[in-house]
Amino acid sequence: MSKRRSFIKKSGLGLIAGIGAIGCATAKSNLAKNAQKLNLPIIPNDLTILFQGDSITDGGRDRGAYYANNGSGLGGGYVKDIAFNLLGNHPAKNLKIYNRGISGHKVPQLDARWDDDCLNLKPDLMSLMIGVNDYWHTLDWNYKGTASSYNDGLRALLDRTFTALPNLKLIMLEPFAVAGGTAITEAWNRDFTPYRKIARDVAAEYKATLIPTHTLFQNALKDAPVNYWCPDGVHPSLAGSHLMANAWLDAFNSVYA
Amino acid sequence: MSKRRSFIKKSGLGLIAGIGAIGCATAKSNLAKNAQKLNLPIIPNDLTILFQGDSITDGGRDRGAYYANNGSGLGGGYVKDIAFNLLGNHPAKNLKIYNRGISGHKVPQLDARWDDDCLNLKPDLMSLMIGVNDYWHTLDWNYKGTASSYNDGLRALLDRTFTALPNLKLIMLEPFAVAGGTAITEAWNRDFTPYRKIARDVAAEYKATLIPTHTLFQNALKDAPVNYWCPDGVHPSLAGSHLMANAWLDAFNSVYA
Repeated sequence: MSKRRSFIKKSGLGLIAGIGAIGCATAKSNLAKNAQKLNLPIIPNDLTILFQGDSITDGGRDRGAYYANNGSGLGGGYVKDIAFNLLGNHPAKNLKIYNRGISGHKVPQLDARWDDDCLNLKPDLMSLMIGVNDYWHTLDWNYKGTASSYNDGLRALLDRTFTALPNLKLIMLEPFAVAGGTAITEAWNRDFTPYRKIARDVAAEYKATLIPTHTLFQNALKDAPVNYWCPDGVHPSLAGSHLMANAWLDAFNSVYA
Repeated sequence: MSKRRSFIKKSGLGLIAGIGAIGCATAKSNLAKNAQKLNLPIIPNDLTILFQGDSITDGGRDRGAYYANNGSGLGGGYVKDIAFNLLGNHPAKNLKIYNRGISGHKVPQLDARWDDDCLNLKPDLMSLMIGVNDYWHTLDWNYKGTASSYNDGLRALLDRTFTALPNLKLIMLEPFAVAGGTAITEAWNRDFTPYRKIARDVAAEYKATLIPTHTLFQNALKDAPVNYWCPDGVHPSLAGSHLMANAWLDAFNSVYA
């Protein structure tokens, strides 16, 4: 039991200062003081934020818990990590966060449920990550889509979205396939790459804030092998989800900076 | 579609720098560079970290997924938020994180499963939060424990722990009851307060790093009402979980600073 008593002290990661002494209370809240220190932007009140995509976004969420900000309804992936941060750091803003990612989905399936799962929710900001199954399912599921139909479908979906929601802010995550993952064959290098380029081009054309997810994971391989970040190359671990969430939070802050 | 294109830029929250341009790659990893910038401590390799407690720690985890670092096995509460951060920020360290919190548990129930769920896991660091049910169940479940038996049981559990694991580092979270929560009656103010004091005293005596959770939540009420942080006063929301996780990460960093 020879351990020093160590009080909590503020570190670079901590958002909460001044809790080292029990019972301390200051007139201004700790969160407010630290938001300033962390250079967090002042975001508008009452934002509705929608996450859309496939299994990576879904993250095993309880789809019956479809109300905003529901812990199990937000799943266990990068969306959950983001929600912890947004809700924890912006308590006075009345944020509403929805996850409507569904495992296995491609652009046509988003399109089929877009009224219910996007337009009717009237998001102020949408985060969209779609495309890996648009390619993957051509290998294993006899799906007949092509890079060209992905391109056309994605643009049509966004045209429809911005027609209904002209002031929507858009964050797009590039679909990725991490080299060395158990599901990633040589064919992906050749045939999935065009899908990634399409997503990046569409993001630029539709003035989205792009998160270069593929590059993010490739760079992370300097720190740990693919199994640590994303065992099958498609579905990130908790560590991989955190990479995505951090990049997403930077993107979000840049939108409102 | 009248939106500016905004590139990702580094903000105070972001751990990943240099991803603004697609395809950038540097010799030194981004994570390594930013760990230094964020003042993260150099933690030892191969740490085993164990979270123990009740429903707040459990967080609805899948108890069958009991292996280290398993997403569903870590639950959806503050432990999950912490795991995202630790695993995402320390990729080369071979961390092993276990959650063994079980809903409804009190000190005697931890004691009954301590070989399996603590000692045999040989943690290097244990995070312990126990006590709310030691009081709560005297109100509703006809539990016959007292503050005195809580004190004795907690000390006996820690004596047993440090006898088996003399080099264990210990983080303790004070049990809390957030005023105004739907489960918190006037009686808590009078009768639960001694349990909180016991936990703080035990933490000091056993050289634990204490997280003053109760004070943390009371201070957060300046930013948003109890329903936002912890609706029933016992079980935190995602926002409340993030308060706890941030304080915990500060504590963790102080242990290895």
